[in-house]
Amino acid sequence: MTPPANMQVEPKLVQPGMDEFIRDIEPPSEEWRQKARVRLDSLTKPLGSLGRLEDIAAQVAAIRGEKLRDPISRAAYVFAADHGVTEEGVSAYPREVTRQMVLNFLSEGAAINVLSRLHRVALHVVDVGVDTNFGSMPGLLHHNVRRGTRNMLREAAMSEDEVAKALRVGYQLGVEAAVAGHGLIAIGEMGIGNTTAASAITCALTGAPATLATGKGTGVEPTAYANKVRVVEAAVARHCSASSTTSPLEILRCLGGLEIAAMAGMVLAGARYRLVVVLDGFISTAAAALAVGMAPNVLGYLIAGHRSEELGHKLLQEHLKLEPLLSLGMRLGEGTGAVLAMPVIESALALYQQMATFSSAGVSGATR
Amino acid sequence: MTPPANMQVEPKLVQPGMDEFIRDIEPPSEEWRQKARVRLDSLTKPLGSLGRLEDIAAQVAAIRGEKLRDPISRAAYVFAADHGVTEEGVSAYPREVTRQMVLNFLSEGAAINVLSRLHRVALHVVDVGVDTNFGSMPGLLHHNVRRGTRNMLREAAMSEDEVAKALRVGYQLGVEAAVAGHGLIAIGEMGIGNTTAASAITCALTGAPATLATGKGTGVEPTAYANKVRVVEAAVARHCSASSTTSPLEILRCLGGLEIAAMAGMVLAGARYRLVVVLDGFISTAAAALAVGMAPNVLGYLIAGHRSEELGHKLLQEHLKLEPLLSLGMRLGEGTGAVLAMPVIESALALYQQMATFSSAGVSGATR
Repeated sequence: MTPPANMQVEPKLVQPGMDEFIRDIEPPSEEWRQKARVRLDSLTKPLGSLGRLEDIAAQVAAIRGEKLRDPISRAAYVFAADHGVTEEGVSAYPREVTRQMVLNFLSEGAAINVLSRLHRVALHVVDVGVDTNFGSMPGLLHHNVRRGTRNMLREAAMSEDEVAKALRVGYQLGVEAAVAGHGLIAIGEMGIGNTTAASAITCALTGAPATLATGKGTGVEPTAYANKVRVVEAAVARHCSASSTTSPLEILRCLGGLEIAAMAGMVLAGARYRLVVVLDGFISTAAAALAVGMAPNVLGYLIAGHRSEELGHKLLQEHLKLEPLLSLGMRLGEGTGAVLAMPVIESALALYQQMATFSSAGVSGATR
Repeated sequence: MTPPANMQVEPKLVQPGMDEFIRDIEPPSEEWRQKARVRLDSLTKPLGSLGRLEDIAAQVAAIRGEKLRDPISRAAYVFAADHGVTEEGVSAYPREVTRQMVLNFLSEGAAINVLSRLHRVALHVVDVGVDTNFGSMPGLLHHNVRRGTRNMLREAAMSEDEVAKALRVGYQLGVEAAVAGHGLIAIGEMGIGNTTAASAITCALTGAPATLATGKGTGVEPTAYANKVRVVEAAVARHCSASSTTSPLEILRCLGGLEIAAMAGMVLAGARYRLVVVLDGFISTAAAALAVGMAPNVLGYLIAGHRSEELGHKLLQEHLKLEPLLSLGMRLGEGTGAVLAMPVIESALALYQQMATFSSAGVSGATR
């Protein structure tokens, strides 16, 4: 595959500073979006009758421009990391499950493996901060910045250096995805405790109270849920005494996770190199919301794959004005909701490319 | 392919009377549904975290029983017919478009062609009542009962003989689908004027006023819309003076269409031969609602592929207590919403069949 025309990078040499993560991100092309709309209106269907599929086709046109008619190669990235806040008993599952699920990904037994195989998506599993030593485990992308974050209830989850490194991991992989010719990337995660981090980020970004931004994660019971809300509330109060003035980067550093930082980095690179970025659930959306906070032009590159059952996901999607493609009551993470949305996006593009026009098919238009 | 175990029919010889359409329809197996639930709970994911996908897998298990683990062959049927009520100016498109779109289906240029190709669904196009003579047009299933219905505003849309013939067309094709080994069928239609028929059926079945059951179809303007509401209201009043006592068959005969009758017949055969039946939009859902009215056990075989933009579709889905898989603002018909839901159903089955269990993968369960 040839690299994007405007790319002059040696992937392995990219070491952008913080500013460089947000540089050169332009919005998608309105000219291409309009061109796509004109074609959509010429296809043999009542005007607008493909609904959201037409919006998706037009958005992908605006992102990909002249590459719209090329096949679009698909990849998914699952970023795994542990969270110090699990000390506070915020999850129904023990911390070891992060490591165990990474092994499950590598042996192809998890939900994301099944969906990626079925929908022909190249799956990449990234250790950006799991609390273990995977050694030279084959099949895993080794980018461990630290064996889990610090406990955000007591201190900032990451140091400045750590958050920059984790952002860089995702940014770099985004650049590599573009160089490899992928046009459509799904972003997912695995990290016991990370709905707690996402809830705290949601409170910090939107000002919502912890009760509205905190869900049951993998399924905590009522007492543990009350504790989780308390932890989110206290962590936000500790790090964002005046939340509206806390920068997205500082929110990420204090309340985020290593996988959340990496996802934010990948979102920024995706927008920079004009990839279509499909978000998964609550946690990847929190990462994207931070990226949008850092560089607002990112928004036009995002597709919300689905709406999860996590309470705060709806808040974040409304904050971003992103309407999800699917709403199937899923709350699994791993990128599953994003990969499940891939056939919908693929359908939108196939309809755009392959349908007959009224004139080519000899079909009469509307009479009024 | 071997025919279903309980089938002892010579497809071409099936000529059931009205009673036979509804005979021998048993509900899906609760035993198999429970078995599937047990397996779903053993897979490496938080309990219930696949949301609707788990319901779908359990429903397909209940329908297919021991065949659950076999690959499921997919077909779509698009039934085309014209409507006498188009005389009343209820559609934005001229009546000729039904014929033109059938030709577009045959030359592979319509939305349903693109989606069926992409999602590996065998597409069948059926002329059950288009107002034309297709001659021996190849690729078309020729079952024209009559060149369009009568104008329901002035008389019953069909005679008793015609409605029985159209039901039989669909029933017979459903039997043939089962014999051919298809396990999952999508049901769609093409017929200028048929949202008017579906709205009238919705009023008759649910008692809803015409204003709530009538949408803009392919896109009528406000004046034409007011006229369409008036036509629906008057037709329902003419044929169902006491709507709660009008039988589903009589509602179908007076207010339906030839394609709607055929779809109802296919739904009945699908339930009889334990196929998974995916509904498309407003019109196929109206056909299914009539079939459920005739034989309530049909309901367990139905999956609502999507929710269309047509106002009455929501009413009918609520009436049937069917929750749609997709909600993408589509209003195209042709079976497009049903075929677009196929990858979701396929995903549910693949997850069920291929995911690792907690014990096989060595992943810890929830701690509380």
